Amino acid sequence: MPPPDADLHPEATGLARKLVNEHSEPQPLKLYAGWFCPFVQRVWAALEEKGIPYQYIEVNPYHKPRSLLDLNPRGLVPTLQYDNKPLYESTVVCEFLEDAYPNHGLRLLPEDPYVRARMRIWTDFVTTRILPSFHRFLQFQPGNSSIDTVRSEFLDTLKQFADAMDEQGPYFLGTEPSLVDIVLAPWAVRLWVFDHYKGGLGMPEEDRAGSAKGSWPRWRKWLAAIESRRSIKETTSEMEHYLPIYQRYADDTAQSELAKATRAGKGVP
Amino acid sequence: MPPPDADLHPEATGLARKLVNEHSEPQPLKLYAGWFCPFVQRVWAALEEKGIPYQYIEVNPYHKPRSLLDLNPRGLVPTLQYDNKPLYESTVVCEFLEDAYPNHGLRLLPEDPYVRARMRIWTDFVTTRILPSFHRFLQFQPGNSSIDTVRSEFLDTLKQFADAMDEQGPYFLGTEPSLVDIVLAPWAVRLWVFDHYKGGLGMPEEDRAGSAKGSWPRWRKWLAAIESRRSIKETTSEMEHYLPIYQRYADDTAQSELAKATRAGKGVP
Repeated sequence: MPPPDADLHPEATGLARKLVNEHSEPQPLKLYAGWFCPFVQRVWAALEEKGIPYQYIEVNPYHKPRSLLDLNPRGLVPTLQYDNKPLYESTVVCEFLEDAYPNHGLRLLPEDPYVRARMRIWTDFVTTRILPSFHRFLQFQPGNSSIDTVRSEFLDTLKQFADAMDEQGPYFLGTEPSLVDIVLAPWAVRLWVFDHYKGGLGMPEEDRAGSAKGSWPRWRKWLAAIESRRSIKETTSEMEHYLPIYQRYADDTAQSELAKATRAGKGVP
Repeated sequence: MPPPDADLHPEATGLARKLVNEHSEPQPLKLYAGWFCPFVQRVWAALEEKGIPYQYIEVNPYHKPRSLLDLNPRGLVPTLQYDNKPLYESTVVCEFLEDAYPNHGLRLLPEDPYVRARMRIWTDFVTTRILPSFHRFLQFQPGNSSIDTVRSEFLDTLKQFADAMDEQGPYFLGTEPSLVDIVLAPWAVRLWVFDHYKGGLGMPEEDRAGSAKGSWPRWRKWLAAIESRRSIKETTSEMEHYLPIYQRYADDTAQSELAKATRAGKGVP
């Protein structure tokens, strides 16, 4: 019997539905995707930012279709099919898109080698620090430790990230977004889960004097920019269809690889 | 009081000693290193492969010197100082060396975008799959589960890696090494720890008919090539000085971040 997670809304809705419709025709480059998956959203937004022609293929990763398993035996989404060969791991795929389509749309990686390396350090920070603490907070159950602990650990990772940003912004490196913004964006637009399920994110209010300086004003400036970015808005579905999925995370009963790894005290698998 | 881990041989020995001596003069590019650290060895070997001028600065990461803390408040090794700015995270630093010194020595990343992406998937596999299972085996203590389980889980990751290699080799991608070989090499030359502390690695013998096909003959071909690579040999110290360090891992009393993460059931921190 498939896990309850398999019982999800079958397709993208809202703005994302429109984008799927526009990318339903066969193309050499195919994205095997689940509309709700934040790792998919990274790659999907990168394709949109770069304006690369692609075919969107909706997959329920709990009912892996033959077409996907033939390509990637682990049946993971996102899987990119390029020249009939598979690619996976969302950040690797995004770097691939930059390498293979250097003259398309947004440049995902900065040209300067030092700036690029620093961007990769913080891209790695998102996956190895921010995401695990996001999930420890989301999957927190009363009884083990205190919710204040997991909340403040999560906020601390966001603060470190904000403090590493270009001062003016609005994006991490400055006026234009890059890979490091895209890898965090899907979780940034899901921060409502903490209000909905966990009693609030608890982010400190703006400085009373209305100062634009400091970690949290900088974070909010970044968040506003990324939330209103076309590539992120148009790859996000209607909130109501995320609810049953995130309810299972909030109850700590979700069966995704990430949910299970979080339960076992591990990082992103 | 510093942990017992801090009480280690203070400097590189054997072939590595010679290399340190050759790189003691001030250079704009500085490598803050611990002679025994496998993550350092990745960057050190990459510098050697590319023939980039650098200054080697020995650091005991348990007694972080001011010069390192001023550069990198976390006091991590390896830290690279480039143009008076810090870089860390060993794979990011190796990619940086390729980006910043594209015309020096070995090309660490293949030119073709698909081959490069596939190489990055397996580079990631080394850090997120092989290393944690190496450490679960090394730090195994009787009582929890069976040593056969952690041994076979570790061997399974090596087998998957071997099966993904170019058939001829000897390196992962073919005749020349690349980043994916360098990131695994430091653990490959430390496989003796399983014979020394854990009753043997238990790798299946060669096929009786002397076949050169299959996972393990391919693994052995790779291992022989990487063990005899100059950049790896000359960044390896004398075995006797690794013994007290790895004894603490084998007893599961080591206090490095990696040792603690492994004890907590986590991956590479």
